[in-house]
Amino acid sequence: MSKAFPPALERLIKNLSRLPGIGEKTATRYALQILRWQEPTAQELALSIAELHRKILLCSTCFAFSEQDPCPICADSRRNREILCVVEGPADLLSIESSGAFNGLYHVLHGVLSPSEGVGPEELRVDRLLNRLGTQGIKEVVLATSSTVAGEATAAYLAQCCKEFPVTVTRLACGIPMGMDVKYADQLTLKRALEARFSY
Amino acid sequence: MSKAFPPALERLIKNLSRLPGIGEKTATRYALQILRWQEPTAQELALSIAELHRKILLCSTCFAFSEQDPCPICADSRRNREILCVVEGPADLLSIESSGAFNGLYHVLHGVLSPSEGVGPEELRVDRLLNRLGTQGIKEVVLATSSTVAGEATAAYLAQCCKEFPVTVTRLACGIPMGMDVKYADQLTLKRALEARFSY
Repeated sequence: MSKAFPPALERLIKNLSRLPGIGEKTATRYALQILRWQEPTAQELALSIAELHRKILLCSTCFAFSEQDPCPICADSRRNREILCVVEGPADLLSIESSGAFNGLYHVLHGVLSPSEGVGPEELRVDRLLNRLGTQGIKEVVLATSSTVAGEATAAYLAQCCKEFPVTVTRLACGIPMGMDVKYADQLTLKRALEARFSY
Repeated sequence: MSKAFPPALERLIKNLSRLPGIGEKTATRYALQILRWQEPTAQELALSIAELHRKILLCSTCFAFSEQDPCPICADSRRNREILCVVEGPADLLSIESSGAFNGLYHVLHGVLSPSEGVGPEELRVDRLLNRLGTQGIKEVVLATSSTVAGEATAAYLAQCCKEFPVTVTRLACGIPMGMDVKYADQLTLKRALEARFSY
């Protein structure tokens, strides 16, 4: 049976299939769409991928993705330097920034503790986090890892490590998401929301 | 509120958001994954996008995507030149080729009739199809457009146009998909499957 797509198209489909959650069918749909675009649109996408690794580096202080070192957040004198928010990854940092509710500094772990996958404290550069706590006058650490099993375990481990330092350790509140119907909330979330109920 | 992602990453996210069905969240996930790849993997994706438009052209006979004109299928002397399968797009051609059940030639419409979107017979180059019927010794035309409203309307229109030519016009059978439970089939499909029942 002959290949029905020309090699240049097959090659792009194979490359797109490497993206997370993309199978051959979706990759084919994307590739055909790119082919339907005007050529400059496709070239712009190609260029933005080609330049990505060259332009993006990790901030040597907080390990956020950045084009400068230190990153704009670490370099911003208007940020509150006494509070540090520890997040799993860059997307979490973005979500918290978008909320507009946090004005401190960050520390990006780039993962969660996962002994089965060989991710331990070294891989997450926990020593660099503790080093910041000891030297940068930080008064509060907000552990903003996810409320998943691995996220909770990582938070518990970090909380233990932070005990050596004169800092307050906090965790993001757990409860009913805004706009959610109580009847659709899972039992564990409801349990946590009841335990953490506040006077109205 | 400051942008939390560096410009090079924001630019890639914006470009990826142009893909069909991709919102900002998914585009962000893809962009972060590309950043996690080794750089050569990202460069290979970039290059395959950059080269796409330059390498791919439309076969001037059947309008399939190809790197040569005529395309490998039209140029293949082992294909049956008396039977022509009309498909909506390149992905349909690929699916039919993958089935291994068709050895004739193709005609790719690159769309379906849609008066509300300004897609008429000219946009689908129906004249070129009819021209092939008149000159290339074709004996059977298989209308393999989708069994959607637009696909059925396009097939009906093409069947009408083909009447001027000495060709048999056929349509893909409609019925229960293989492996599907009868109780999950929709009523229209069941009706068609019953009408087209065959002796066992």
